[in-house]
Amino acid sequence: MSAPAIYNFSAGPAVLPEAVLRTAQQEMLDYNGTGFPVMSMSHRSEMFMSILHHAEQDLRQLLNIPNNYKILFLQGGATTQFNMAAMNLAHGFKRADAVVTGNWSRIAYEQMQLLGDTQIHLAAHGGELFDYTDLPAPDTWDIAPDSAFVHFAINETVNGLQYQDVPKLSDGMPPLVCDMSSEILSRSFNVADYGLIYAGAQKNIGPSGATVVIIREDLLERCPKNIPNVFSYRAHIEKNGMYNTPATYPIYISGLVFRWLQSQGGVKKIEQINRIKAETLYSAIDNSGGFYTNKIHPNARSKMNVVFQTQSSELDKTFVLEAELAGLKLLKGYPSVGGMRASIYNAMPLEGVQALRDFMLDFQRRYG
Amino acid sequence: MSAPAIYNFSAGPAVLPEAVLRTAQQEMLDYNGTGFPVMSMSHRSEMFMSILHHAEQDLRQLLNIPNNYKILFLQGGATTQFNMAAMNLAHGFKRADAVVTGNWSRIAYEQMQLLGDTQIHLAAHGGELFDYTDLPAPDTWDIAPDSAFVHFAINETVNGLQYQDVPKLSDGMPPLVCDMSSEILSRSFNVADYGLIYAGAQKNIGPSGATVVIIREDLLERCPKNIPNVFSYRAHIEKNGMYNTPATYPIYISGLVFRWLQSQGGVKKIEQINRIKAETLYSAIDNSGGFYTNKIHPNARSKMNVVFQTQSSELDKTFVLEAELAGLKLLKGYPSVGGMRASIYNAMPLEGVQALRDFMLDFQRRYG
Repeated sequence: MSAPAIYNFSAGPAVLPEAVLRTAQQEMLDYNGTGFPVMSMSHRSEMFMSILHHAEQDLRQLLNIPNNYKILFLQGGATTQFNMAAMNLAHGFKRADAVVTGNWSRIAYEQMQLLGDTQIHLAAHGGELFDYTDLPAPDTWDIAPDSAFVHFAINETVNGLQYQDVPKLSDGMPPLVCDMSSEILSRSFNVADYGLIYAGAQKNIGPSGATVVIIREDLLERCPKNIPNVFSYRAHIEKNGMYNTPATYPIYISGLVFRWLQSQGGVKKIEQINRIKAETLYSAIDNSGGFYTNKIHPNARSKMNVVFQTQSSELDKTFVLEAELAGLKLLKGYPSVGGMRASIYNAMPLEGVQALRDFMLDFQRRYG
Repeated sequence: MSAPAIYNFSAGPAVLPEAVLRTAQQEMLDYNGTGFPVMSMSHRSEMFMSILHHAEQDLRQLLNIPNNYKILFLQGGATTQFNMAAMNLAHGFKRADAVVTGNWSRIAYEQMQLLGDTQIHLAAHGGELFDYTDLPAPDTWDIAPDSAFVHFAINETVNGLQYQDVPKLSDGMPPLVCDMSSEILSRSFNVADYGLIYAGAQKNIGPSGATVVIIREDLLERCPKNIPNVFSYRAHIEKNGMYNTPATYPIYISGLVFRWLQSQGGVKKIEQINRIKAETLYSAIDNSGGFYTNKIHPNARSKMNVVFQTQSSELDKTFVLEAELAGLKLLKGYPSVGGMRASIYNAMPLEGVQALRDFMLDFQRRYG
C-alpha cells in the first residue's frame, strides 16, 4: 500500500489489529476449509460451537480466569449489563453501592435506580463537584457489608480516568461489579477480586455487538426466577451461552483478537507497551509548557483514553481537523468534555502514538 | 472454485448472498476509500452514520414503510424484543393478547408474563393440543379492544408454519405486534397493518447481532419513563438509534443485503422466487407416496422453513448425514420437532432447492 498510514484513535468501535482483519478477510467465504462463511453458520453447528469454545478458552487463559468463574458472550453492551447486574444480583437486597467517577458510572448509577426496590447508594464520587478530575480512593468508599454489590467503572472512557491500583475490598464486603469495557486485557489483574466483570467488546476486544461477562459461579444463585430468561445470567449459563442466538460474527472476531494477543506475548507484555504509549502522550502534554493540558490528577490518568486540550476550543477544532488530514483520525473529544481524546487501546501500535506525539510537537511549533 | 457447491439450509444464522460476502471481503480493511475498516469506525463517525442512514432508507424503500413508522437496529434478537414490547407498550393496561402457534410465540407468551402487572391473555393457539399443525384463523382470535396489543409470530421457524394471509384486524382493535424474524422481506405486506414489527436479522436479513424494529410513532407515547433507557423504544428513537453503541458490523452487512435485494428486483420479485422454491419442496414431499411427510395443514405451511420427515427417525438421521456429504448442509430439524428442516430464505438460490429436491428423489429411490 502506498497510501500514508492511518491511525484511528476512536474510543470505540475502535482500531482492530490489521492481522485480525486480514484473517477475517481471507476466511470471509470459507472458514477453515469448512466451505462455510462464519456469518452463515448456525450458532448450534459444531463449527460455531468450536469457535465459541476456543474464544472462551483463550480469554480464560489470557486473563487467568479461575474455574469458579463463568464466561458469557452476550449482546447489548455495557449499558445492558449494569441493568442486568442490578436485576440479577440485587434481588432481595435493601441496598447496592455505586461509585460515580465519570460519564459511564454515572449513567449506571442513575439507570440502576429504575430497577426493583433496592436502593442504589452513592458510595463515592469523583471530585467535590462531580468534575471527574480525580478518583475517590477505594478505602474512602462508603460501602456496607450487607449491600448487594459495589458497582464501579475501572476506566472512564469519556473522562479519561483509570484506577491505577485495582480496588480490592476486604473480606466480608460485597462483591465488586466492574465495567471493564475500556480496560479489559490492557493490563493484568486478579479476576478473583471481582464478583462480576463486564465489557463491551468494541474497545479492547473486537467489534461492537459482543459483550463479555465474567461471573463468579456462586452469584448465579441470586438470579431471581421471575425475570425473563434473556435478562437472567443463570438462564444464559444453563444454556451454555445459547439461550438465544448470540452475535456470532462479533464473537468470531473477538476470538481472533484473543489469538492475536497471545501471539503478542499476552496481557503482561501488552501492558508494558500500553504503559509506554500512555507515557509518550502524557509526557508530550506535560512538557508542552501549558500549550496542552490534561486536567486529570496524575494518579488517576487513564492509559487507554488520553484526554487533552489546547488553550481554546477554536484551536482544539483546528487540531482535530489538521490531525485528520495527517492521518490521525477521530481525535475529537466527547461532546460533554470537549478538546481531544486519544484512545490507545491494545490494537493501537506504538508507531501510531509516536506519530500523534510528533504531530503535537509540530502543531505547537506552528500555533504555540 | 472446483469444489462442489455447498447449500446451507440453516434456520439461522443462515445463508447470505455470496455477492454480499464478496463485497464485505473486499471492503474489510478499507470501506469505500475511507481507509477505515467498517468494524473500526466510531458509531458516531460520519462514515458509519452514513452506512446506518442508507440501511434505514433502503429498508424503508423495500418494505414501503410509511413515514409515521420509525426504524431501529437494536441488539438482543427477537427474544429481547417481545420483552421490550411488553415493557414499553403494555404499561397501564390490564391485558395484552398473545397468539401461540409454535415454539417462538409460545416462548414470547410465557416470558411476557414475567413482566409487570399486565395479564397476558392466550388469545388463540395452534392445534387442539398445542401440536402446532395448523394456525388459528385471525377471526377466531379472542382479542379485546382494550388490550394493550396482540402479539403473534407470522412464521414459526421451528415448526414450519406461516400465515398465508397477513392478519388484518378491524378498526378499534389493539395494535398487532409481530415477530417477523423468518418472514421479513420474503413477501410484500402492508406495514400499516401493524403497530410494532421486530425481526432478528439472522434469517432473512443478515448476520446475528442486529435486530430490526419498526414501530408506529404514536405508540412511543406509551413507553413508560421509569424503565431503563436501554429497554425503552422512546429512548432509542430520541437518540436516533445511538442511545448505546449499536452492532455496527451486523448493521453494515444488513445494509449490503438490502442493496442486494434491490438488485434482485425487490420484495415482489423475490416473493415469486420464494413461492417456486417452497412449491418445489412441498411437491416433492406430497408426491413421494408417503415416503416423506409434512404434518402441517396445507394452508399453514411455511414458505421459509419446510419441515419434513421420513417414516423413521433412524432414516431421518441417514438422510441428514448423506445430505451433508452431498453438500446439502444443516438439514437437521429442531430437537423438539425432529426430522428435517430446510430453511429457504431469500438468499437460498433456486438451484439449492432443486439440488435438495433431486437428492430427496434419489434418497427415496435408494431407501424407499
